[in-house]
Amino acid sequence: MNILVTLNSSYINPLKVMFKSLFISNSEVDFTIYLMHSSLSKEEVAMLENFVQTEGNTLVEIPIHDHYFADAPILKHYSKEMYYRLLAHKFLPNDVEKILYLDPDILVINKLNSLYDMDISEYLYAAAYHDRAKVNELNKIRFKEYEVENYYNSGVLLMNVTKQRKEMKEQEIFDFVNENKKKLILPDQDIINGLYSKEIKNIDEVKYNFDARFYLYYKITNKIDMDYIIENTAIIHFCGKKKPWLKNYTGKFHSLYKYFEREALRH
Amino acid sequence: MNILVTLNSSYINPLKVMFKSLFISNSEVDFTIYLMHSSLSKEEVAMLENFVQTEGNTLVEIPIHDHYFADAPILKHYSKEMYYRLLAHKFLPNDVEKILYLDPDILVINKLNSLYDMDISEYLYAAAYHDRAKVNELNKIRFKEYEVENYYNSGVLLMNVTKQRKEMKEQEIFDFVNENKKKLILPDQDIINGLYSKEIKNIDEVKYNFDARFYLYYKITNKIDMDYIIENTAIIHFCGKKKPWLKNYTGKFHSLYKYFEREALRH
Repeated sequence: MNILVTLNSSYINPLKVMFKSLFISNSEVDFTIYLMHSSLSKEEVAMLENFVQTEGNTLVEIPIHDHYFADAPILKHYSKEMYYRLLAHKFLPNDVEKILYLDPDILVINKLNSLYDMDISEYLYAAAYHDRAKVNELNKIRFKEYEVENYYNSGVLLMNVTKQRKEMKEQEIFDFVNENKKKLILPDQDIINGLYSKEIKNIDEVKYNFDARFYLYYKITNKIDMDYIIENTAIIHFCGKKKPWLKNYTGKFHSLYKYFEREALRH
Repeated sequence: MNILVTLNSSYINPLKVMFKSLFISNSEVDFTIYLMHSSLSKEEVAMLENFVQTEGNTLVEIPIHDHYFADAPILKHYSKEMYYRLLAHKFLPNDVEKILYLDPDILVINKLNSLYDMDISEYLYAAAYHDRAKVNELNKIRFKEYEVENYYNSGVLLMNVTKQRKEMKEQEIFDFVNENKKKLILPDQDIINGLYSKEIKNIDEVKYNFDARFYLYYKITNKIDMDYIIENTAIIHFCGKKKPWLKNYTGKFHSLYKYFEREALRH
């Protein structure tokens, strides 16, 4: 199974926790992990490679040099890393036809086969949108001239790399950024939604992109309880600013996150 | 390592969860588990034996027949099982010199060696008391004529079986029950405290008998946070009526418990 991550140094530990949870929960799968980055040191990459190999999987480094994005428009507060997951198809080896992008602020607690094996031949992506009326509506209004039907979360993205190579144009993305500079809040996510919303296959957010902040919301509206999540949710996503590896985090999955963190970071 | 459990059928699943967490967190230890019971079916015992053996450990059944406790006083709402952990030394094989009794409403998340290897040659037991002023004080007052210094929790009891065989008298226990019939609330725990409080070596409650209900209390008073617990606490004890395997449980270790439960009960 191909996994894509894009990273800067400050997320190395969370990334290891995500990897560990991925490997524990999918122990029968061979993973090839593609790591796109521009700022990791050789030692950091070697350490990650060793970590992934110890678990029987493979890490492929894709170092990104500045000149690749020389023409790309820049947004205040955002580095050019915002383009990595959008343009990954330009950097991945030709034989990669499908890949699952995962944010590092994620715990994988069940098997991913049913997601990965999904037929997305007619789509550029598969992703989930977080169906809490306010958030989704607000983001649809923000990009209403692009007829965004649902505002998808880009933290879990199954990518049809073959189709992306054929259809996605770098210039189209740069134009979109230039036209919407003032409007972009989460630039990579906004771009995917603004340009490709209709070419995204919708996947079950509870199974594949469970927003950890909204346990009670899901519980009340969908009657989804902890039993259901532990049995059925594959991906818990710690969206937002409060992260489970930071001090003073409180949240329903705090103890579970810390347990995996210990397993990932112990020597 | 010798482990003692006493059980009726309604706790079989929690017991398996406790076993699973014990084995995962102490994978290098060979466990011999002594199971005292009077009501389990042959099938239930065989299933538990198989469960324990699959993990490379040994289960020894100690069936208790009614006539063993023919002379024992009975308390309303309590079966004679209340005597099992008190009088285990009478039923354990002679070569068992030390054993760790564990309640089934427990998760073991770290190694137990430091507890098990503790020198208790001068004591009958090692146990922790829950140092929340009100609870401890109230229970000390309840048994003030017995000069109870601390009211220990009997859910985690390291037992000096050799010394217990020499010094503990069945009749003394029955007399205590008869004298205090109206006063006993948690009979086995009350008996241990009433009769043997001074012969209990005090162990760290945060490490070896962390009361899951009081996460916030420990956090505020002892500055113990989730990081500390995941690194240092060996035993999380789900005391009280709200159990993590019941519907509508909410608690700081809910997700972690459910994760272990899934691992224990999946086929």
